[in-house]
Amino acid sequence: MTLEHLPSAAPSLARLIQELNKLPGIGPKSAQRLAYFIIRLPDEEAYDLANAINAVKQSIMFCGQCQNLTDASPCSVCANNQRNREQICVVEEPLDVLALERTHCYRGLYHVLHGVLSPLNGVGPDQIKLRELFARLSDGEVRELVIATNPTLEGEATAMYISRHLAGSDVRVTHLARGLPVGGSLEYTDEVTLSRAFQGRQQVD
Amino acid sequence: MTLEHLPSAAPSLARLIQELNKLPGIGPKSAQRLAYFIIRLPDEEAYDLANAINAVKQSIMFCGQCQNLTDASPCSVCANNQRNREQICVVEEPLDVLALERTHCYRGLYHVLHGVLSPLNGVGPDQIKLRELFARLSDGEVRELVIATNPTLEGEATAMYISRHLAGSDVRVTHLARGLPVGGSLEYTDEVTLSRAFQGRQQVD
Repeated sequence: MTLEHLPSAAPSLARLIQELNKLPGIGPKSAQRLAYFIIRLPDEEAYDLANAINAVKQSIMFCGQCQNLTDASPCSVCANNQRNREQICVVEEPLDVLALERTHCYRGLYHVLHGVLSPLNGVGPDQIKLRELFARLSDGEVRELVIATNPTLEGEATAMYISRHLAGSDVRVTHLARGLPVGGSLEYTDEVTLSRAFQGRQQVD
Repeated sequence: MTLEHLPSAAPSLARLIQELNKLPGIGPKSAQRLAYFIIRLPDEEAYDLANAINAVKQSIMFCGQCQNLTDASPCSVCANNQRNREQICVVEEPLDVLALERTHCYRGLYHVLHGVLSPLNGVGPDQIKLRELFARLSDGEVRELVIATNPTLEGEATAMYISRHLAGSDVRVTHLARGLPVGGSLEYTDEVTLSRAFQGRQQVD
């Protein structure tokens, strides 16, 4: 959407609409709606939003250990002595760490790859944080690597790559179970998931 | 979403997610996605967005004539000598002006009410910009008032209120035609719209 499409909007308003329109999932209509919402916000709340954007750009960096996004390196997970330093869970993106933390079932460390291997898109081992991962394994403290990449073709290929790279080492490489999503329905489950669930069937306690 | 739900997110990041989450139509998941998108933006683009928010709050005001949101009063429409000063189109919200301008079929002035009459919600004639509208009509220059409030119960009631208030004056009060939306289907048109389209049927040229 260019300025020409907003002939009667005030320039500062048209500019805000344009900037909001660049965000993912926000089309021209949503951008307009958001802009008018921001105009009607109390000044303080609008400035809070602008300041939060500036602050995040100024303070966010990669954690030197797990490569997650953080305000301070090492990040709060890596710096936490209560976490199990013998386990590292490998994820694609920072949001995956949040998702796993919400389950409260994992107390080890993380490693964020910031992507997956995707040769067709020009993403090789050097384009994601794999070298940093292997460097963390060199001191022998880590006993298990839980690979939690997405269950997609590229996620699986990345898991395979890591697993092959560590073949012969003492590190146990696991990945998250595939199976029926809780609350899902067998009837509507795709064949691949169903066959994985069948192969991975477990003893009923 | 409170900070407690984001235990492993950096504080500045959690704050940005919270601020984004306050915007309409942006839930916790979208807020996270947007926040990570903003983190990955080039610094300049992120600052552009923050600056656009600040600028809009600092510069936007009501146009003294049409009450539209503007950077300068009178706004570009009211200040434009090419516009027909004998017509005023009355709309509920600033976005409606943009929608009408995009049609390129109206060259008169506007008046933005910033709401509609809604006694149940405590919105009476004094809560919207009706007094400002009637004041604009007092000099006798305006010949036609095109009421373009939404075709809702409240929009129609507001149109009725304006029309009754001007009964006996020289100003011609019209409203936008009701009928079948172009590209729509007769089969799926609701009864009220269809009966209005029938009543307002026009000669085929």
